[in-house]
Amino acid sequence: MIVDVHGHFTQVPVQLDAYRGRQIGQLSRPPRGKGDPGISDDLLREHLQPHVRENQERGIDKIIFGPRAGLMGHEFGPEWISRHWTEINNDLIARACAMYPDMLIPAFQLPQSPGVEPAASIPELERCVAMGFVSLQLNPDPSGGIAPLSPSLSDRSWYPLYEKMCEHDLVGLIHAANTRNPHLHMNGAHYVNTDVAAVVELTTSRVFQDFPQLKLVIPHGGGGIPFHWNRMRAIHVGARLAPFEEAVRNIYFDLSTYDAESIELTIRKMGVDNVMYASEMWGSAQFIDPETGRKFDDTVDMVTGIDWLSDDDRYKIFEGNARRLYTRAKL
Amino acid sequence: MIVDVHGHFTQVPVQLDAYRGRQIGQLSRPPRGKGDPGISDDLLREHLQPHVRENQERGIDKIIFGPRAGLMGHEFGPEWISRHWTEINNDLIARACAMYPDMLIPAFQLPQSPGVEPAASIPELERCVAMGFVSLQLNPDPSGGIAPLSPSLSDRSWYPLYEKMCEHDLVGLIHAANTRNPHLHMNGAHYVNTDVAAVVELTTSRVFQDFPQLKLVIPHGGGGIPFHWNRMRAIHVGARLAPFEEAVRNIYFDLSTYDAESIELTIRKMGVDNVMYASEMWGSAQFIDPETGRKFDDTVDMVTGIDWLSDDDRYKIFEGNARRLYTRAKL
Repeated sequence: MIVDVHGHFTQVPVQLDAYRGRQIGQLSRPPRGKGDPGISDDLLREHLQPHVRENQERGIDKIIFGPRAGLMGHEFGPEWISRHWTEINNDLIARACAMYPDMLIPAFQLPQSPGVEPAASIPELERCVAMGFVSLQLNPDPSGGIAPLSPSLSDRSWYPLYEKMCEHDLVGLIHAANTRNPHLHMNGAHYVNTDVAAVVELTTSRVFQDFPQLKLVIPHGGGGIPFHWNRMRAIHVGARLAPFEEAVRNIYFDLSTYDAESIELTIRKMGVDNVMYASEMWGSAQFIDPETGRKFDDTVDMVTGIDWLSDDDRYKIFEGNARRLYTRAKL
Repeated sequence: MIVDVHGHFTQVPVQLDAYRGRQIGQLSRPPRGKGDPGISDDLLREHLQPHVRENQERGIDKIIFGPRAGLMGHEFGPEWISRHWTEINNDLIARACAMYPDMLIPAFQLPQSPGVEPAASIPELERCVAMGFVSLQLNPDPSGGIAPLSPSLSDRSWYPLYEKMCEHDLVGLIHAANTRNPHLHMNGAHYVNTDVAAVVELTTSRVFQDFPQLKLVIPHGGGGIPFHWNRMRAIHVGARLAPFEEAVRNIYFDLSTYDAESIELTIRKMGVDNVMYASEMWGSAQFIDPETGRKFDDTVDMVTGIDWLSDDDRYKIFEGNARRLYTRAKL
């Protein structure tokens, strides 16, 4: 079986962004309720087809399926706009996953907002747990790089959220939304930079001493941390911290890097117990590679093709580690 | 011969930081002149010994030698404080390099300041050119991630600086100073994240169409871009830009990554004509690796040990490419 731990519902009906357009258009006059984008079951099913078809074609049996990341929209507007938009997106994911319960495993976004304590997201977390969600997308930088700047992931303000994640055994995928910094490209720089920053804040702090059961996944091959492995090791030696190679193994990296060499490097550095297969489908790499004629994110072969992996190693990467982490899911 | 294109004078006399302390202490009352940290030739020579000795021990013949990066101090204070501090640092580098002219090749910092046009740095650039400097450290994010946020490196406000760099055939090392963002670790995240952002802004824009002669080096193995190679290729395909693998070869990556596998990956992705040896000595990786008993940044062997490189390839990486780029230096 192949489990993909990093999917986003990107092929959404246009009605969803129309809702967002209307929502933003009445920014100065908050509505009484969150409203409804008006997406019928038929329309929803139709828009899920690209996702379902591509999973089937690639032999991906199950995918952790969350809302679009860049459009989580945390960086925009007051708290109510994020709360309504988040509920709309999470409701849509819940409906989508209920249509394909054997394939789509639901992940939710948090109603994060600039300057708002992470604890304010707990009611939506509880609502999603009650709906059967198994994972969440945690944005370390809800303001997208402008004031009020977000605190480190080691800051105590995150602790109530970590407590709830442990209580419900939820897996957190660290994932940025958009940035408002004009020198950061969202897909090209901001996403992977957020990953790097998150790994550094988590490994240089006492988060995992305080929450040994916390389950966090860093996407995109840990944002390139395997490449900077010895840089991180040196920083830990210089700062007299616990060895980086021990601290980082409290975390899991997914393999959505689209390159056989990067995938192999990530597995070698992190070890087969701390990596999980991911395509980030349909995301940044949904385009055809002119060199191969295949989509960049069509990477199952890149893992099966690594000849030094044992069958047991491959089992862990494609299925075993996900089974161990996502206990709330029917994998 | 071995040329190291990325060195910082980090083992400075304490008098330099004492100057900075006094400078910041009188922030509200700007002095009439820049003052003097009072560093004698003997004291300067003494503090250069760790740098000189370690270069000799490792067989590094020449090093591009600039001020400390994190302490360029751009993110702090009004324009005058950056101008004075920059002049003090550049003067010190000029004196240091004059003491060891066969080994230390001078690089300067710019007097950048938050919200100040890059063109304002041109007088100091001209002063340094007149003193014989061959390279400069260009900080794409002088405010360190707080308002006023710095524009993209593709923004026209950088163009007067690029023009001057081309006019004098100066090589620019893209290098961040410190950050004021509380969730970014300077060495661990901010430096390499700035590298990634710079590569993306440069490759997705028309900077090299407008300045085909511009010479820019991205440190730390291009900040991990070789790891994200296909992510970048996919983004270029999706945005209908020129192929990433062509656009990125307008830039040079240095090899200061401290890891045999990352160094090899960088050379393989970028090709031997676009990479240059660098240790970033004495910098983030100046500590002893407990696994090897050697310093993390002692990496010459990692390049000489790559068995698929030809003698000509090694010549390019250690010397030839630097000779081609740093035409103002006596290499």
